[in-house]
Amino acid sequence: MGIKAVNHVAIVVEDIESALAFWRDALGLPLARTERMDAEAVEVAFLPVGESEIELLEPTTPDSGVARFLEKRGPGIHHICIEVDDIAATMARLRAHGVTLINETPREGPGGRQYAFIHPRSAGGVLVELYQLPAE
Amino acid sequence: MGIKAVNHVAIVVEDIESALAFWRDALGLPLARTERMDAEAVEVAFLPVGESEIELLEPTTPDSGVARFLEKRGPGIHHICIEVDDIAATMARLRAHGVTLINETPREGPGGRQYAFIHPRSAGGVLVELYQLPAE
Repeated sequence: MGIKAVNHVAIVVEDIESALAFWRDALGLPLARTERMDAEAVEVAFLPVGESEIELLEPTTPDSGVARFLEKRGPGIHHICIEVDDIAATMARLRAHGVTLINETPREGPGGRQYAFIHPRSAGGVLVELYQLPAE
Repeated sequence: MGIKAVNHVAIVVEDIESALAFWRDALGLPLARTERMDAEAVEVAFLPVGESEIELLEPTTPDSGVARFLEKRGPGIHHICIEVDDIAATMARLRAHGVTLINETPREGPGGRQYAFIHPRSAGGVLVELYQLPAE
């Protein structure tokens, strides 16, 4: 199939520390690490759940995509990320079905992962990210 | 820990057949089954992704919670479900942290699974469902 897992569910929060009071302290998820991702202007907290992660995104500037999402829609689920084994093949397949991609070619993130976003208008209002992790 | 997996991510759709054009045909997820759940007034399509599932929810009546969500916010992600091994213990822990639960005691769903929802106001705007699956 080429589709491997839900890599993460990303949630926009106003403040990571306050959000951890629910996700870590009350629900009991472990906090694996936090990362500042300047390319996306977010601070991210990663909380593993089985083979997936909950990612808490806090905007670090007032004008990023995540900041505008928070301003417009309030805190909540921002996107879901699906891990595939061949992101180029998945993107070609999506294009062949008339799906609009936000990134026309895969971008490279920390650790060598490749990623691309599918436009929510092609996915029933859901922002879907694709990941291909580097071979181990 | 007691927390096992992201059991599913539930997405509200206007029409399951149209939504499958993206999730099944374009993205390539398998459609495992569909189920009509009269208790929640939804038709549900289940698409496995690793240890999780994407669930597409189509309201079957105009006055259900899911129908009102669709009317108010449009199609998109509705909730995320976390599988735990002891739902009563998780709910007690949440209550001890001042978290508001929608269901005060676990409800029983098809196949003997127990489930309960956490109120989004306690979870940063995210509707979180808890599952405990029956022992195999």
